[in-house]
Amino acid sequence: IKLLGFLAWLCFSTLGATLGAKVLVVPVDGSHWLSMKLLVKELIVRGHDVVLLEPETTALGKGLVGCRNEIYPVSYTKEELGNVLKQLQENVFIKLPKITDAYVNVQRLIDYTSIHVKGCENLLYNQEVMGRLRLEGFDVVLTDPFLPCGSILAETLSVPVVYFLRGLPCGLDEIGTQCPSPPSYVPRFYSGHSDTMTFPQRDISYKDLVRRGAIWLLRYDFAFLFPKPMMPNMVLIGGINCAKPSPLSAHLEEFVDGSGDDGFIVFTLGSMVDKMPADMTIAFLDAFKKIPQRVVWRHTGILPEDVPENVKIMKWLPQNDLLAHPKAKLFLTHGGSHGIYEGICHGVPMVMMPLFGDQPDNVDYMVARGVAVVIDVFDVTTEKVLEAINKVVNDTSYKEKMVNLMSVHQDHAVKPLDLAVFWTEFVVRHQGADHLRPAAHNLNWIQYHSLDTLCLLAAIVMTIAFLGLKCCCFCGRKCCVRVAKKKKVL
Amino acid sequence: IKLLGFLAWLCFSTLGATLGAKVLVVPVDGSHWLSMKLLVKELIVRGHDVVLLEPETTALGKGLVGCRNEIYPVSYTKEELGNVLKQLQENVFIKLPKITDAYVNVQRLIDYTSIHVKGCENLLYNQEVMGRLRLEGFDVVLTDPFLPCGSILAETLSVPVVYFLRGLPCGLDEIGTQCPSPPSYVPRFYSGHSDTMTFPQRDISYKDLVRRGAIWLLRYDFAFLFPKPMMPNMVLIGGINCAKPSPLSAHLEEFVDGSGDDGFIVFTLGSMVDKMPADMTIAFLDAFKKIPQRVVWRHTGILPEDVPENVKIMKWLPQNDLLAHPKAKLFLTHGGSHGIYEGICHGVPMVMMPLFGDQPDNVDYMVARGVAVVIDVFDVTTEKVLEAINKVVNDTSYKEKMVNLMSVHQDHAVKPLDLAVFWTEFVVRHQGADHLRPAAHNLNWIQYHSLDTLCLLAAIVMTIAFLGLKCCCFCGRKCCVRVAKKKKVL
Repeated sequence: IKLLGFLAWLCFSTLGATLGAKVLVVPVDGSHWLSMKLLVKELIVRGHDVVLLEPETTALGKGLVGCRNEIYPVSYTKEELGNVLKQLQENVFIKLPKITDAYVNVQRLIDYTSIHVKGCENLLYNQEVMGRLRLEGFDVVLTDPFLPCGSILAETLSVPVVYFLRGLPCGLDEIGTQCPSPPSYVPRFYSGHSDTMTFPQRDISYKDLVRRGAIWLLRYDFAFLFPKPMMPNMVLIGGINCAKPSPLSAHLEEFVDGSGDDGFIVFTLGSMVDKMPADMTIAFLDAFKKIPQRVVWRHTGILPEDVPENVKIMKWLPQNDLLAHPKAKLFLTHGGSHGIYEGICHGVPMVMMPLFGDQPDNVDYMVARGVAVVIDVFDVTTEKVLEAINKVVNDTSYKEKMVNLMSVHQDHAVKPLDLAVFWTEFVVRHQGADHLRPAAHNLNWIQYHSLDTLCLLAAIVMTIAFLGLKCCCFCGRKCCVRVAKKKKVL
Repeated sequence: IKLLGFLAWLCFSTLGATLGAKVLVVPVDGSHWLSMKLLVKELIVRGHDVVLLEPETTALGKGLVGCRNEIYPVSYTKEELGNVLKQLQENVFIKLPKITDAYVNVQRLIDYTSIHVKGCENLLYNQEVMGRLRLEGFDVVLTDPFLPCGSILAETLSVPVVYFLRGLPCGLDEIGTQCPSPPSYVPRFYSGHSDTMTFPQRDISYKDLVRRGAIWLLRYDFAFLFPKPMMPNMVLIGGINCAKPSPLSAHLEEFVDGSGDDGFIVFTLGSMVDKMPADMTIAFLDAFKKIPQRVVWRHTGILPEDVPENVKIMKWLPQNDLLAHPKAKLFLTHGGSHGIYEGICHGVPMVMMPLFGDQPDNVDYMVARGVAVVIDVFDVTTEKVLEAINKVVNDTSYKEKMVNLMSVHQDHAVKPLDLAVFWTEFVVRHQGADHLRPAAHNLNWIQYHSLDTLCLLAAIVMTIAFLGLKCCCFCGRKCCVRVAKKKKVL
């Protein structure tokens, strides 16, 4: 045993050393993969044996050198998946009556989750793939619990799981970590979407499943989101995507550098949005004609012929590199969390036009911090765009507050990426993180709120009060009887 | 502004560099100083200008090279302070009836706090010293909020404050950080002592004062204490005192190394306890005669003549160095938090005899983890001591569980000392840590629990229900009348 202790000593005094652990990565497609990819890359660099598990319809593993790919066949086509995704993006620019909007969105989310449920079934019932995965003997599963397949797989393989996420709808992340979250000052994440719970019966079991997460790597940061209670197994890695900027291409560098003291604006609505309505495009272009700044705009829809000279249209733009440029004056964005972190990292104030998902929430936070102004996507006019841009550019408080946010956001004892790697390896070293699991997981609702204790106390107090009252009554009656007797005697 | 941003960039990309900040340290005497001293030393090493403020009756600054001392005169003598401290230590070995015990303890705590209140007044009304402190222009105050003088001083000087502590009585630390703490699974710290609140009227203002702490450096660690909700400005630095062991003196090394495979026991009841009753000393010695282990015992009281050969009595012993020795088999301790962390750091299971303060709580935690056995200080017999020692030595589960605790406790992304330095410097860099302050501080009790919202909702529901009922009644009556009329007509 002494030797055991000594070995443990040796082992843990060389922390951070390569362990060569077996890591199973179960990713979620789309923007969710953007920052998880960074962690996966770093795990590979540090010598871990990483297996990326994905359906044949995606190609997330492409370009990931040193990573093994395990691809499973699914019963839907790439086109079907594409259609479902396209549906989610459609109509973000069109204002529908609230009820129609809710109905349409729920229907689309059902379509989206259904196709993934199908894919997960295809995986779990594929005995060949599952057999291979079982034989691997993984040390840890790294997954985004936004879709439950990774959690189910970890449970099936009995491997500790590390979650990597921005948040879960319906407070599932708070339930999963047993984190208190007083609604009086903790804004409800996705609260506008609580009606999108399409499978309440499945949700209940997912609740129990998601509680088993050993470590929750949260893309959360108090420079962006508001301070709130945390649980010991919640690790904040917000800003993990703020990579060191690469140099711009020569023609882009020439364009933005030529903007002089007025600087330039970075304009993108994210990869999920394809086509902006023509009249909205014109409203923006008309506004851009009237400002001294240059504009780099990621735009993939139809364009009028008279695009002004100070606007450069691109099918894709290096967002992080552009924001890092010293002449970047303003970030015109839809308010996705990745873009927001990049804006904060480089201290660029924002004009925001939220479209869907967590974007309206994100935008609210940034407006509350005084670093952004919002444009309503259903009410875009040249005047409104102009007003928003001029406000943020001319009122220096936006820039100053953004620089303050940047300074606290950048000030880490450990960089988010290193922290994410550390905790993933921690779970490998200790086969989980049981010492961080609160006893609250073992309590039901009544026990958690101490209602059983309170009821017992109330019962005791009431019994004593009742007995006391009875005693008083009894004594009182005795006295009365005696007085009456005395009176009689007299 | 661009320049400002760029400078901020430059500044925060050289994190951890020496800042040369002005740090005012307001320490608390006794064991509280043991670990804070480590942080103060490290701040000096990193080039900060540290001023240690203390009353003339203590000499904490002695031996701290590179630190300026600001000593203020007080209206009590060193002897008076000594007496008050001695009183606190007295009678820990004598069992008094509960009520007498509580009364005596409250009286002693009043004496203890009174003398410190006097000292604090002596400081705050000393215009010369206060004038000098004001002129210094400190960047940060580092203090232990166990006594409120440091907090009051920080408030007076309008300097952000970093707290360094193990915990505060009456849940003051939870109030100060606005940290939720469900009583159903978070054990109440010091709960046995909630009757020691001697100055409730002062406490109320202290509550508000203590909330202003920018960062709370907590000697808390989930290998030792149970996982519970945390707030973003609570930084866990438990185990900060686990220094690298120094080599033992030649004669001590010879003694413990000669213990062979049986190993040796480290026995100390801490620096607060001076004299053990003679019969208790004999009970321990008789037990030690019957075990194969050697014992190194810190003992300052009266000794019988026949101390067995396997026992080495010392007036002071290098606890951390001894526990780090590979032949250390068992730690016989009173359960002070410093000793516990050292035991965990070196993976040595314990036999514990709690005396006062937080020790009974600490011991409960260790027993619950299966790494310690407890002895009742009021019921010490040779048999009980023997039984406890043999249980921990022979049942290998104690050692195994302790090695597990050790492995998670040692596995830090950042070492506790570096973390404490980082956050102290963070407060200097950002003039506080406002972005970590939850909005809960601005809410009253009713708002925090959303009772106002709930009341409004209840009122609306009840109004609707009432109106609905009235409508039904009205319609019902109309119908009845009609039916009655019809009947009449018929």
